[in-house]
Amino acid sequence: MTRAAGGSRVSRATVTPVAFADPPLRNVVGVHQPWALRAIVELHTDSGLVGLGETYADEAHLARLEAVTHALPGHDPYDVHGLRRLVADVLGRETGGAGASFGGMLDVSSAVDTVFSPFEVGCLDLVGRETGRPVSDLLGGAVRERVPFSGYLFYKWAGHPGRPDDDWGAALDPDGIVDQAKRMVDGWGFGSLKLKGGVLPPEQECAAVEALRDAFPELPLRLDPNGAWTPETSVRVAERLAGVVEYLEDPTPGIDGMGWVSARTDVPLATNMCVIAFEHLPPAVAADAVQVVLSDHHLWGGLRRSALLAGISETFGMGLSMHSNSHLGVSLAAMVHLAAATPNLTYACDTHYPWKTQDLIVPGALAFEDGSVAVPSGPGLGVELDREQLGVLHEEYLTCGVRRREDTVYMRSIEPGFTPNTARW
Amino acid sequence: MTRAAGGSRVSRATVTPVAFADPPLRNVVGVHQPWALRAIVELHTDSGLVGLGETYADEAHLARLEAVTHALPGHDPYDVHGLRRLVADVLGRETGGAGASFGGMLDVSSAVDTVFSPFEVGCLDLVGRETGRPVSDLLGGAVRERVPFSGYLFYKWAGHPGRPDDDWGAALDPDGIVDQAKRMVDGWGFGSLKLKGGVLPPEQECAAVEALRDAFPELPLRLDPNGAWTPETSVRVAERLAGVVEYLEDPTPGIDGMGWVSARTDVPLATNMCVIAFEHLPPAVAADAVQVVLSDHHLWGGLRRSALLAGISETFGMGLSMHSNSHLGVSLAAMVHLAAATPNLTYACDTHYPWKTQDLIVPGALAFEDGSVAVPSGPGLGVELDREQLGVLHEEYLTCGVRRREDTVYMRSIEPGFTPNTARW
Repeated sequence: MTRAAGGSRVSRATVTPVAFADPPLRNVVGVHQPWALRAIVELHTDSGLVGLGETYADEAHLARLEAVTHALPGHDPYDVHGLRRLVADVLGRETGGAGASFGGMLDVSSAVDTVFSPFEVGCLDLVGRETGRPVSDLLGGAVRERVPFSGYLFYKWAGHPGRPDDDWGAALDPDGIVDQAKRMVDGWGFGSLKLKGGVLPPEQECAAVEALRDAFPELPLRLDPNGAWTPETSVRVAERLAGVVEYLEDPTPGIDGMGWVSARTDVPLATNMCVIAFEHLPPAVAADAVQVVLSDHHLWGGLRRSALLAGISETFGMGLSMHSNSHLGVSLAAMVHLAAATPNLTYACDTHYPWKTQDLIVPGALAFEDGSVAVPSGPGLGVELDREQLGVLHEEYLTCGVRRREDTVYMRSIEPGFTPNTARW
Repeated sequence: MTRAAGGSRVSRATVTPVAFADPPLRNVVGVHQPWALRAIVELHTDSGLVGLGETYADEAHLARLEAVTHALPGHDPYDVHGLRRLVADVLGRETGGAGASFGGMLDVSSAVDTVFSPFEVGCLDLVGRETGRPVSDLLGGAVRERVPFSGYLFYKWAGHPGRPDDDWGAALDPDGIVDQAKRMVDGWGFGSLKLKGGVLPPEQECAAVEALRDAFPELPLRLDPNGAWTPETSVRVAERLAGVVEYLEDPTPGIDGMGWVSARTDVPLATNMCVIAFEHLPPAVAADAVQVVLSDHHLWGGLRRSALLAGISETFGMGLSMHSNSHLGVSLAAMVHLAAATPNLTYACDTHYPWKTQDLIVPGALAFEDGSVAVPSGPGLGVELDREQLGVLHEEYLTCGVRRREDTVYMRSIEPGFTPNTARW
């Protein structure tokens, strides 16, 4: 419903897919491709403002975003509920409703939240620009001036096969992980560390975490094998790492498995796999399956639905952390505003930021210092597109040949016969 | 934390207690006193705006509101989280923390939400006035142009003892209730009806509901005995009224009792007694004790925390309705904006509005038509104080002698030896 009051309306919306170089970061399903994809959403108003959003760029997702842009002209940026209906209507009409989204992991209700997200962020950016307020103010006000992030450690090769090595070098054992962590801590000041596991047998990953503990006695540590372990193995790992990790993230797949493990350890279990949509919360709560939920505004339907997730987590006694996929500066700005305005987000947020070598926002708005990013104080998200860089990254998208994230397919091109490590150990 | 961005700040805040005539409406704990109390909160900004809130006016509550007003100058109306901290700090300092609030029903965490509420509403009113947006827009946009309310039927005497009869007359049996309902439906157009029970033995109240069903075959009906029945009686009533009521509200006290009843009937159970704060939600969900939660922004910490309650209700599969106490136009405006911007509020809201004969807002902004109120489209709440009437009602407060709501004390002055009917039958 369009309200009577005045204010800018969206006159035009665009979606620009971009690609940026990504190192060969290993995970449970394979390895990152040489190019990571993102989509930049721009909402133009009749008054000349531009609101920004950033999201995934798998082909199916891009088609859905594109379909939404055609329905947006005339939309009131304040009208969140109307935007959600609009997205649901478009998805119902343009894609036939239920069905797989990118990655095949999401049902239609999650597809609505995922497609809705960059438009919701863009609308908040517009409202902030129109009112002269940072997005964090629109979310209830920043409760912290800086948002701490966790350094994200990965097992990795020295470089993508057939391409020059990147300058991080290989990390395939405890020493390699500790060296990587030292570079992260020295260069960025991270005050906590997360190791992406699910790559090597759990004993080796535990040894890496223990080596990190020895090298950084004071830093909170996390291990995330993305469900690579059986419930029994998860309990064994939890016993070994009790007192060493602040939480174990998705040791085993599924709410039932997590609940089984949770009942047998005091180590908090976190997730961004078995609870990634609102419909997963009731069974997870009933099973006491997770003690820490990782929010992610890209997946949970934007910043205000992420605030709802935060309120639910607080109400039901679950901790809150924040997940990231490979991302650029528009997403980082949104993550920082959301985290700043979420009182119970007491864990440092994840970010892939150190791993990328390119960006598309005007430099200077977001800087890591002591492992944290100051909340931008300008209107809206507080970041501007660097249009030249946007053009460069869009050109990379056009020429790189990657059209969806396929870590397993890419891994198999290097190691034929590779199968994901899900519950392998 | 005060953000760098510009905008108005609160320069001064006032609390004005008011009283308005209230008929002798019966309930489980006794009968309404001749005067109902409310407090009007005004937030003045350095730019000359005034934001309004309305809340309870029991003495202990008034003292807490007053204490908050002293801490408000300089507050940024956007800073919800800061406001909540401010209120919590003031309550900790000024009242010694834990302890009974008005009515003795609320613990300290609820006291924070209750004291916070009118200031949160006032801040939203200010933001709306500053941006030229109705409060419903600030809550994500109205999803309905009119908000339907339920006609609120009460057992009542013809008048307060020792005072002239009011013009509604007595209602102490099914015929009296049906006559009252006819006047409500004819005069206000209500499309659903709620009977406040807990006054007479359940058989008589069931007979009244059945008489309403006969007189109004199409209207949804509700019965709310405020916990007057045992769990066993509640099940018997549910069996008798299955298919007749859309829900039974608080048939029996407590989450455990409600859960026991809920397991034995398909009639939805609603509550505004056993779930009145966020901490009550986890045990209620675990026990499947309630199928419909009655929100109430006065109790749940304002409009945005009521939106959080709505999101929780949706996520956990509970329906949502809205509770009211005796209230005036500032509260009605806030209720209408909230209800308009809450997609899953699919039940008609409660209101005591027909029972009052006085108000303190400039007439015309809010009108009942076909049992519903159009969402004000002006900036903020869309209502203005009628300062003359505010003076009249404040004078009534000063002279009426009532300083807190004490239905039982008043009832005993008329029927010595009366004890509340809680779980009596």
